Amino acid sequence: MNKLRVVIALGGNALQQKGEVTAEAQKAVAETIGKKIAKLSQKYDIIVTHGNGPQVGNILIHEESAATPSAPAMPLETAVAMSQGQIGYWLSQAIDNAFTKEKRRKQVASLVTQVIVDRHDPAFKNPSKPIGQFYTAKEALKLSKTKGWEMREDAGRGYRRVVPSPQPIDIVEKKQIMTLVDAGAIVIAVGGGGIPVVRTKVLKILKGVDAVIDKDFAAEKLAELVKADIFVSVTAVPNAYINYGKPDQLALGMLSVREVENYIAGGQFGAGSMLPKMQAVAKFAKKKKIGIVTSPDRLELALERRAGTIVQ
Amino acid sequence: MNKLRVVIALGGNALQQKGEVTAEAQKAVAETIGKKIAKLSQKYDIIVTHGNGPQVGNILIHEESAATPSAPAMPLETAVAMSQGQIGYWLSQAIDNAFTKEKRRKQVASLVTQVIVDRHDPAFKNPSKPIGQFYTAKEALKLSKTKGWEMREDAGRGYRRVVPSPQPIDIVEKKQIMTLVDAGAIVIAVGGGGIPVVRTKVLKILKGVDAVIDKDFAAEKLAELVKADIFVSVTAVPNAYINYGKPDQLALGMLSVREVENYIAGGQFGAGSMLPKMQAVAKFAKKKKIGIVTSPDRLELALERRAGTIVQ
Repeated sequence: MNKLRVVIALGGNALQQKGEVTAEAQKAVAETIGKKIAKLSQKYDIIVTHGNGPQVGNILIHEESAATPSAPAMPLETAVAMSQGQIGYWLSQAIDNAFTKEKRRKQVASLVTQVIVDRHDPAFKNPSKPIGQFYTAKEALKLSKTKGWEMREDAGRGYRRVVPSPQPIDIVEKKQIMTLVDAGAIVIAVGGGGIPVVRTKVLKILKGVDAVIDKDFAAEKLAELVKADIFVSVTAVPNAYINYGKPDQLALGMLSVREVENYIAGGQFGAGSMLPKMQAVAKFAKKKKIGIVTSPDRLELALERRAGTIVQ
Repeated sequence: MNKLRVVIALGGNALQQKGEVTAEAQKAVAETIGKKIAKLSQKYDIIVTHGNGPQVGNILIHEESAATPSAPAMPLETAVAMSQGQIGYWLSQAIDNAFTKEKRRKQVASLVTQVIVDRHDPAFKNPSKPIGQFYTAKEALKLSKTKGWEMREDAGRGYRRVVPSPQPIDIVEKKQIMTLVDAGAIVIAVGGGGIPVVRTKVLKILKGVDAVIDKDFAAEKLAELVKADIFVSVTAVPNAYINYGKPDQLALGMLSVREVENYIAGGQFGAGSMLPKMQAVAKFAKKKKIGIVTSPDRLELALERRAGTIVQ
């Protein structure tokens, strides 16, 4: 019997517990995640993707604040690639080690992944996603002039660069991912929403763009392309909620795509947090598949539809 | 007829021409390399590996000089992973674009790769490879005390950290690489000599170590494991030479493993430059295979044994 195929999207903060951000602390968290994924892989074919918000943020802070002519700062799209190497390494080593401890063998592969966005995506006209470090008003003006960055004042804390967040339309390495999945590997791909690239107008070649692709939207695209049966967005809370934080807060269990759409229309989910997750799982569930939002500790039960918010 | 399988090792400086080190400049060089590799892939199955000396050097400079408690510096082994993401992205995009321009399609895959070294490797007792930025004597003393780094004075330019350079003994992702090669992909792997890992004593799990694996030795190990027919170390010069830089300098063409060994014994090749390349190609050639040292512009001819230094 074929195993069900599951795409698991780990939140960008999933590797940073209790605010600990050293490599050692993040590897320790990866170890726990690795153990869980190794266990689940007995029942499911698993493809893992992950956010990179805090990690690429720190890479950019280092790149930008320590840039010199002989060691210039890498641009955002290359920093995303660097974060894929970093987190992909931590996760694949953690999963591999979990198998070794269980005396099982299974291939694990972390793939550098480019995700195509439309160069006419309206997001390019409205950069909205803050990234990297804070700057003073004077520095912000200079960066705006010298690098063409769009700078925005951020809640009284200073100025930050804002970049577009376009929609993912295709994954360059989709066949390579499938090749590895078909060979029985646990694949880690599309990290941080993928390295954002466009196809150029005339030559139709790939070109990196400084943008951030929403991790849940990219993960949903991945789940579609690898023909997954289940797509799970793993986050800090066990469920999505309506009336979140109010006395009549209610955890959502099983619900239909239509119900999710109604809640979205009613403004029930927080922009930038639960909203993109619920949009992504609903989009996936629309294709007669199952979309789940849950926390790491409920993951196993949720895949059996006994916990979490299940959209189908 | 099966194509010959070729492992091409690009020098760490291969992406940095005329001292230009921005992402844009390195991508432009990658474009030239990508075109060459796309062309060669019509005749050969190709696996690409690359050095990362200048790139990981700059990553470490940024990580170390801009480290803060909320954005701590990543350790060397993680920085190697980051450089694999970075360079792997540039190369795979460049190769993919070359195919698009030629109106051909072929999968390209960049894989995060760990390389196993022996934790009893004598190199761990004698760190010799300088990495990262220069420090003052006072800073060096402090780093030595706080981080346990081995610091060494570097030719009057200040103090640098030195790390071990152990021998590669296995590649964790070898099967994954083969899976992709067998599916017809051009694979980029083992970047920067690979992320150095050891197997721990009791649990035998993987653990990253701060070390640098020689890129040519790691590439040779890769060539062995993927059962390549030809291993090419691509460098800045078209040939290896004897009496290099002297009036009787002589370019080496075809030669035997025995001849290489004699030249090595005679101290003909520069440590840290031509020596590891000639050691690596000779080691490979010993297995009744072909080992080549040449420059990018002679690569095609050298694969036909009409240029370069050919050891067999």
